[in-house]
Amino acid sequence: MPKITKENTTVRLIVSGLGNIGWRFLQILIDKQQHLRRRYGLTFQVVGTADSRGAVADPDGLDLVRIVGLKKGGRSVSDYHTEMAGPTPPGLAFGSALDLVNEIDADALCEATPVSLDDGEPGLSCMRAALRKRMHVVTPNKGPLVLAYEELTELARIKGVEILFCGTVAGGLPAINVGRRDLAGATIDRLEALPNLTTSFILAQMATGLSYEEALAAAQAQGCAEADSSLDVEGWDAAIKLVILAKSVLGVPASLDDVSVQGITGLTIADLQEAETKGRVIKLVATAQRQEEGYALTVAPTPLPLSHPLALLSGQQMGVVYHTDIYGVISAAILETEPVPSAATMLRDLLTLYA
Amino acid sequence: MPKITKENTTVRLIVSGLGNIGWRFLQILIDKQQHLRRRYGLTFQVVGTADSRGAVADPDGLDLVRIVGLKKGGRSVSDYHTEMAGPTPPGLAFGSALDLVNEIDADALCEATPVSLDDGEPGLSCMRAALRKRMHVVTPNKGPLVLAYEELTELARIKGVEILFCGTVAGGLPAINVGRRDLAGATIDRLEALPNLTTSFILAQMATGLSYEEALAAAQAQGCAEADSSLDVEGWDAAIKLVILAKSVLGVPASLDDVSVQGITGLTIADLQEAETKGRVIKLVATAQRQEEGYALTVAPTPLPLSHPLALLSGQQMGVVYHTDIYGVISAAILETEPVPSAATMLRDLLTLYA
Repeated sequence: MPKITKENTTVRLIVSGLGNIGWRFLQILIDKQQHLRRRYGLTFQVVGTADSRGAVADPDGLDLVRIVGLKKGGRSVSDYHTEMAGPTPPGLAFGSALDLVNEIDADALCEATPVSLDDGEPGLSCMRAALRKRMHVVTPNKGPLVLAYEELTELARIKGVEILFCGTVAGGLPAINVGRRDLAGATIDRLEALPNLTTSFILAQMATGLSYEEALAAAQAQGCAEADSSLDVEGWDAAIKLVILAKSVLGVPASLDDVSVQGITGLTIADLQEAETKGRVIKLVATAQRQEEGYALTVAPTPLPLSHPLALLSGQQMGVVYHTDIYGVISAAILETEPVPSAATMLRDLLTLYA
Repeated sequence: MPKITKENTTVRLIVSGLGNIGWRFLQILIDKQQHLRRRYGLTFQVVGTADSRGAVADPDGLDLVRIVGLKKGGRSVSDYHTEMAGPTPPGLAFGSALDLVNEIDADALCEATPVSLDDGEPGLSCMRAALRKRMHVVTPNKGPLVLAYEELTELARIKGVEILFCGTVAGGLPAINVGRRDLAGATIDRLEALPNLTTSFILAQMATGLSYEEALAAAQAQGCAEADSSLDVEGWDAAIKLVILAKSVLGVPASLDDVSVQGITGLTIADLQEAETKGRVIKLVATAQRQEEGYALTVAPTPLPLSHPLALLSGQQMGVVYHTDIYGVISAAILETEPVPSAATMLRDLLTLYA
């Protein structure tokens, strides 16, 4: 929990990945610098950062305003030193994030490279290297977590550091934190989540009368869906998040193979209208239902009654519901209209570690 | 966060107050004993307990099944030893919870005596005594927190222990924990809460066409309202919870005098119907609105649009919404149909300390 401390602690960070999430995280560090120092006695100093084209370091702390400026201008951090007055300082430019992690001393790695479900790279190798060097890892990157959860958490345990990943499941919603911390001691009988914004947006559009194809195009036009949105619309993104919830909150081994997955590509306006006549709303729900042994994991379009805590979430909301034995039914939702809350999850994880 | 540990730690508890919350907490400890030992390596041993008529202790751990049996039978723990075979062991019966705290060694005090807004007693004196002895305190008791928040938290800080009170605000909803931990680093622009079940229940009844008086009578018949429900229906219970949220989450000094309070006693069916024609639902909302300096604190019947996260909560739900700068808009709600989740908040706080 937040401590108001007068001690001044400097935490040295390596930030890998400077896309939508990464550069916004740097912007948050800039904006919150005074507040974090005053409230928590903490100074976060970025001593190294990498994007897909290069990596730079400065043991005295990089100029974050300059880096955010480069990224907003569509350029690479590899231009960072060449932009500075005088010649490039030796030993401060690197080929990749992994080189940076291996060569530079820091307290924590903030890992926000793109998700790969094939091999988890480049995030996975960086996380391994960081943990081996006894650096904490904070990350919203689902790939390494879903592919190597046990390896990474065990490596962290052996090295006496933490890997925190509250941003992997539903953007800025503290779904994992509520499950792990606030439901401690409970048996979770059922977990339901709407962890995927793209499908929520598409279904919300379809509810207004658009066809699936029109709704998908609208989502892509608004930046709510990738050009290749198959991971989202076929339910795999929700399934990945369900697996991470199962491992981290429910404490059960699970893999993508264990999830019964059905996406929204087959849904028609008629399906939604039929649900509506029955007083229901169709959402793409990720569910973990407790059984005699373990949990049944499913992702499927599900007609929810209007009284369901997830039924009336908009196309810009994500949510989770925990049905428990001793804490009642606890639900949580987030309205996330831009990537800032997802970026801020790395700050949340850092403050869990240091505040 | 939960750690799965193989170490075995025994935590000695004093449990003060064995009403609706207190005895259910003991029942939870009984039911969860195996789970807590297996998952967290923790054994909670109740070495002393008190109700309004007496107090008993056993350094080797009291028989919780026996105590729950006494309480369910409407009896006092002062009958505990006299029920045992043989004569009452000397030094194990006490006049009050305060005597117990002063005389018995324990690691944490679980304080669940009735709320007093006059002087916070008997809880306040027990909490002070426990903190002075370097015992942690966990409590859902609002009285001492609203009257002596700064004193108690400062005393805990000086003594190097914790006072945790996640159950003071909205039953089993982790409203405080989400605010303090998951919104760390954020500026909270606006906080809205439905923290009072009685008024939610009454308004839900009125929405079905009952008059205020009929709805109040229904709440009392169902055990959702005290015989003297003035604290609830006049908005003071919500105001108390708002003050605790302001102090603990928003980090601002606040007292009941700072809250503009309006209850639901003046509401008519016509008011609810008029709101309905405008597509709104009237709820008793506790609000903290950020201003140039500090927050404006209000409790008032408020017409909410149906899209508001609190608008459609039922008469058995409580909820909170945080409007933040970097974490989006995060809402959470609980369906609490019995006092078990409120009782379980003491377990949650204990696991925050020990797991």
